[in-house]
Amino acid sequence: MTTEKLTVGIFLFDQVEVLDFAGPFEVFSRTRLTPGTEARRSEDSAPFRVFTVAKSEATVEATGGLQVVPAYAFETAPEINLLLVPGGFGTRTLLNDDATLGWIRRTSNKAQLVTSVCTGALLLARAGLLTSRRATTHWSALELLGEIDSTIAVQEDHRVVDDDIVTSAGVSAGIDMSLAVVENLFGRKVADETARYIEYPRTGRF
Amino acid sequence: MTTEKLTVGIFLFDQVEVLDFAGPFEVFSRTRLTPGTEARRSEDSAPFRVFTVAKSEATVEATGGLQVVPAYAFETAPEINLLLVPGGFGTRTLLNDDATLGWIRRTSNKAQLVTSVCTGALLLARAGLLTSRRATTHWSALELLGEIDSTIAVQEDHRVVDDDIVTSAGVSAGIDMSLAVVENLFGRKVADETARYIEYPRTGRF
Repeated sequence: MTTEKLTVGIFLFDQVEVLDFAGPFEVFSRTRLTPGTEARRSEDSAPFRVFTVAKSEATVEATGGLQVVPAYAFETAPEINLLLVPGGFGTRTLLNDDATLGWIRRTSNKAQLVTSVCTGALLLARAGLLTSRRATTHWSALELLGEIDSTIAVQEDHRVVDDDIVTSAGVSAGIDMSLAVVENLFGRKVADETARYIEYPRTGRF
Repeated sequence: MTTEKLTVGIFLFDQVEVLDFAGPFEVFSRTRLTPGTEARRSEDSAPFRVFTVAKSEATVEATGGLQVVPAYAFETAPEINLLLVPGGFGTRTLLNDDATLGWIRRTSNKAQLVTSVCTGALLLARAGLLTSRRATTHWSALELLGEIDSTIAVQEDHRVVDDDIVTSAGVSAGIDMSLAVVENLFGRKVADETARYIEYPRTGRF
């Protein structure tokens, strides 16, 4: 099987929404090219290597008070092939944080694929990455997304929008987005089998 | 609104499946009796107080390497009204861990409601809590559940089984289970509005 794994860097920050990062973490870290339960006991047929990254290595407090220790800081993270920017109320203060926006921009420039969940799209927009693209976000932030960058063609009623950069609607739509990325990279069978493993009902509505 | 919140204790352990605990954490911690986005910015109308509990306060490594710091150890946890036992490969070693099984038994005796996600049901069974009850677990562990306690009426093809103790099928079924508990306690409207906030498609198939 693949020995060279695609790295997935999941950005963490204070007041990140729990399911925004945990859903995609689950999907990418449990995807296997070999089907079944046993294959999940090792990393042998795992096509991704998934890790979390925050501004520093300090423990992050997600919404509801969940405490997560990031695997890496901006400075220490390995190369990121697939960047995932989750949302949450914590995005609002980061809209004016140059260190974060600069890191997102630099990481995106080198990544093969850039994705967001929920209001993570606001950060991508603010970093200038969604200019003239179709994109979506949590239903409560659709207007704000268009205000940050008026060239964005904001999509309502889509769980996943793929316009080179892949954005998704709120919270649990990040699971659909991750499965869609798995499908694009490794085919329908691998994505469906992973969905079956985590017993997630793929709606097929993108 | 409610000032006395129901406490939700989510058990963590090494090799707990990420979405097993993170899905329910998201649902219970984001439920509000007042609808809308603004209500989620404070705990004022939150009916639950959600926290994680592990054997000790040491950082737990979930599947895929996610590092989570438990809020409490067995010894230091506040009273738990609603116990949630998630699954994951880590359950297998705990099937013979008297400290864990004893804590689950003691905590369940005092709790108003006991729930499990995925292979968390194996631990409830081993603790003797599912005797002569209907229950379910991840599809790959249905047989094992019946082997641990042959009096259990193992339910296939159900996402959520409520027989006083509430068990659920694998991984993302924990989200359905949590929303079902919210509905039982606070009504359909509150559960549906929470599902809408996290953009989770309730299947209605229990």
